[in-house]
Amino acid sequence: MLRQLIPRATTYKQSSKFVAAWASPRFYSIKAESASTAQLHELDASKLTITKTTTPKELVPPSELVFGRTFTDHMLSIEWTASEGWLAPRITPYQNLSLDPASCVFHYAFECFEGMKAYKDSKGQVRLFRPDKNMERMNKSTSRIALPNFDRASMIDLLSKFAALEERFIPSAKGYSLYLRPTMIGTQRTLGVGPPGSALLYVIASPVGPYYPTGFKAVSLEATDYAVRAWPGGVGDKKLGANYAPCIVPQMEAAKRGFHQNLWLFGEEEYVTEVGTMNMFVALKNKETGQKELVTAPLDGTILEGVTRDSVLSLAREKLIPQGWKISERKYTMPELAEAASEGRLLEAFGSGTAAVVSPVRNISYKGQLVECGLKPGEEAGEIATSMLRWIEARQYGDEEHDWSYVVPN
Amino acid sequence: MLRQLIPRATTYKQSSKFVAAWASPRFYSIKAESASTAQLHELDASKLTITKTTTPKELVPPSELVFGRTFTDHMLSIEWTASEGWLAPRITPYQNLSLDPASCVFHYAFECFEGMKAYKDSKGQVRLFRPDKNMERMNKSTSRIALPNFDRASMIDLLSKFAALEERFIPSAKGYSLYLRPTMIGTQRTLGVGPPGSALLYVIASPVGPYYPTGFKAVSLEATDYAVRAWPGGVGDKKLGANYAPCIVPQMEAAKRGFHQNLWLFGEEEYVTEVGTMNMFVALKNKETGQKELVTAPLDGTILEGVTRDSVLSLAREKLIPQGWKISERKYTMPELAEAASEGRLLEAFGSGTAAVVSPVRNISYKGQLVECGLKPGEEAGEIATSMLRWIEARQYGDEEHDWSYVVPN
Repeated sequence: MLRQLIPRATTYKQSSKFVAAWASPRFYSIKAESASTAQLHELDASKLTITKTTTPKELVPPSELVFGRTFTDHMLSIEWTASEGWLAPRITPYQNLSLDPASCVFHYAFECFEGMKAYKDSKGQVRLFRPDKNMERMNKSTSRIALPNFDRASMIDLLSKFAALEERFIPSAKGYSLYLRPTMIGTQRTLGVGPPGSALLYVIASPVGPYYPTGFKAVSLEATDYAVRAWPGGVGDKKLGANYAPCIVPQMEAAKRGFHQNLWLFGEEEYVTEVGTMNMFVALKNKETGQKELVTAPLDGTILEGVTRDSVLSLAREKLIPQGWKISERKYTMPELAEAASEGRLLEAFGSGTAAVVSPVRNISYKGQLVECGLKPGEEAGEIATSMLRWIEARQYGDEEHDWSYVVPN
Repeated sequence: MLRQLIPRATTYKQSSKFVAAWASPRFYSIKAESASTAQLHELDASKLTITKTTTPKELVPPSELVFGRTFTDHMLSIEWTASEGWLAPRITPYQNLSLDPASCVFHYAFECFEGMKAYKDSKGQVRLFRPDKNMERMNKSTSRIALPNFDRASMIDLLSKFAALEERFIPSAKGYSLYLRPTMIGTQRTLGVGPPGSALLYVIASPVGPYYPTGFKAVSLEATDYAVRAWPGGVGDKKLGANYAPCIVPQMEAAKRGFHQNLWLFGEEEYVTEVGTMNMFVALKNKETGQKELVTAPLDGTILEGVTRDSVLSLAREKLIPQGWKISERKYTMPELAEAASEGRLLEAFGSGTAAVVSPVRNISYKGQLVECGLKPGEEAGEIATSMLRWIEARQYGDEEHDWSYVVPN
């Protein structure tokens, strides 16, 4: 009953009928091919229109800023349709989205986002940090869930214009910034499960204060063994909404037992993957050679391609290798950490992400034991975490000129 | 460096400080505990208010109905807040949702849904099919992503009132029904990743025609080996939006190569799990004994707990076991199917789901070969699929009185 598959060309021809019958409007209101046949508009920053608010908000005092709670006066939005492509970008007053309750974003999680920041340097210039990395990643995310791609340079241009317009919301002090949240959602109003025929790319912005207003606070983690964040062949390496809601209950469980965050393990080997919604780094001393090694999990499809992760790795290669360190993207396990800790070879551990830059880890609850991560009592951060925050902030705020920092034109 | 974890009570007390510091508004605008300390309102169907539309829609001719494309005049909605619980249910004219662009449903996929149908029986009564199963499953889905639970009986009462109000949209003919889409979304307007402090449960309804207007059409599947739908410890057994968007690209890839749907395999063993967004059944003849066996994958955390799956299994146990069949919820592999097919022992295969009830499978593309699934040329459905559709429809439309069918009070 097994027979060779008919050659692809023939299959495809025959398939048009199949697809037409099966993927008729019952399943797809937009045919998969339509996007490629029509002449679609590229994202065009020159078509931007700006409608300014007539009721500017009062600034929240810097000391009262809460991450993602208050927003600036405006938002940037760009609509896309499968038949026309990208429509003209618009900056408008910050406002509610009005969406049909059948919109696919509410049912099938057609949504992805980015987290990035705009900083004000000592001369008052607005700077973005590695916006190309965020836009590159966002296109990978959208592709994975059948949402449209966009031209990165045009989008960076638009983000710059938006950040410049909202410049008054960025306090002029180290540690402060304007968090930018580019988001893309599928807006097609049908319950058929298929590629969205329309989408909305929008950006909102929230002024934020320093993550550690009074200096680092090391966190305690609970290693999660009953839930899995990501798996090979899954979507854990993309910044999809789908990866976040399922993380909350394990996080709440960890909090119930007195831990700040959960640590995601994977597989029988108990590979260490991510901490909460951050990438994870550990500094180890080699058992035989005594060489110091900074380790993070490799991008094997289960690890988010963090921009801060990449920055930490680059800086480590630049500044730590000359000091004799080894920098490794490799798999490592919880038993390996526990052993290193018991032998005094676990020097430090920290999470990395846009919000905190680095977040030092004090200890990890694992199988009823606390694995101590190298901090002395009363110490809140290790040497590498402390250096990394300083090195990265120097580039974010333009104290060190570097091509990671993108100066927003006036 | 390993030390015993401090006893839980102490840990918890100590942890309050930890949690307060870490889970302060930066992370959670709603503390995890708040929901349990306040006196929260239960979902109360008696508080329903109905605002009828003043512009009733024209009915779409039954032959032109498309799944999930047109909706009835009204929608049911119930708001929830962490501080008050469930607010009064409302039926209003069908209308757009107006949501802050920072709402957590757009960023972190706080969303889950159900698919169920209301039928009109030969006496003109409206019936729901196993609504208790859908509401039970929905509560499991909401729990997994930190959205609130609700009283099932109250919700069935509300669904009944809604279906009764929209009765004119249900055509009086076999195969027609009113598809009901209960949906819950997180509405809290903050970018902090935490349990939503507010949510909206809403129901919209779309009249649908028969899935096979001119009789069964068997489908061709492509076994997907490059992407994985679900994982043990993941959320693939819940009806979360998060499980759907990542399925589209593999489905489009299958369509490109001429197949109607993709078949999700799991692991090195190539376990057969689900077909597209349906559960999968196969009928096999035992190699040694010749006994017929109806097989579907077990609920091991990677398989959606389909209501139709459960109905198929129940009916098979009731009607096929007396005919000598064996009914199995067990793991089975693609190589097992290929072998059975090559030996003439793969009798038939079909998907099961609310939309189609059963969807017969003609063949499966697997490693460059087509595994034929027991249909003769020109035949569109096997014996079991045909019987199952008949048996299930008899209970859905009330031709056979059965407690799976819930008659909506007038």
